[in-house]
Amino acid sequence: MNRRPKINVFEKLRELSKPWSPRVVGEMNDHQFKLVKLRGEFVWHAHPEADEAFFVLDGEMELEFRDHSVSLGIGEFYVVPRGLEHRTKTRTECAIMLIEPKGVANTGDAGGPLTAPDNVWI
Amino acid sequence: MNRRPKINVFEKLRELSKPWSPRVVGEMNDHQFKLVKLRGEFVWHAHPEADEAFFVLDGEMELEFRDHSVSLGIGEFYVVPRGLEHRTKTRTECAIMLIEPKGVANTGDAGGPLTAPDNVWI
Repeated sequence: MNRRPKINVFEKLRELSKPWSPRVVGEMNDHQFKLVKLRGEFVWHAHPEADEAFFVLDGEMELEFRDHSVSLGIGEFYVVPRGLEHRTKTRTECAIMLIEPKGVANTGDAGGPLTAPDNVWI
Repeated sequence: MNRRPKINVFEKLRELSKPWSPRVVGEMNDHQFKLVKLRGEFVWHAHPEADEAFFVLDGEMELEFRDHSVSLGIGEFYVVPRGLEHRTKTRTECAIMLIEPKGVANTGDAGGPLTAPDNVWI
């Protein structure tokens, strides 16, 4: 049988150097788990057809919406509902796990230079 | 607009006392995030139509399959593929986050007295 390896998110994070480069570490049904490091300010965007979960593994981040923002630290998670414009902001660096459907682009409907290649595993 | 609260999984865990009582803490698309404490040995079961992700937040657990087992500690996760028989075992207590489709029963196809009520939020 296919014996899948377990995933240690902290070990995997050490292999991630560049910010804004999501790396897939697991799949479950039609969803994927991705690790990503955030540094500074991302672009405003929305994912019209997908809720997106953020789970903070290291550091702190702001999840900004047009009319308010949410601060997240280690062990905190937040689900951004589909269609809602958001961007992330960090003062230093923050490492998170994203859980979202396969094929969701990091820049959503905004596109642009920060759009990362899809489905890159680590 | 609907301002969802952020979820601190460690705070939520303090509200969980009984083992084997999954509590929903978030929803994302057709999936839910559930916190649960494991203590001792669960029942063999499978979820015929759903992959199930285990993410360890505190303690250690064994994820047993019929022909091997996987030890998981803090920060480690594992996706049990649909249809594969498994059970959890712990020496002391372990707190985990489960991510799986809504409506998946904790005892899967096995049923029995450890079957927990579905969709109870905390």
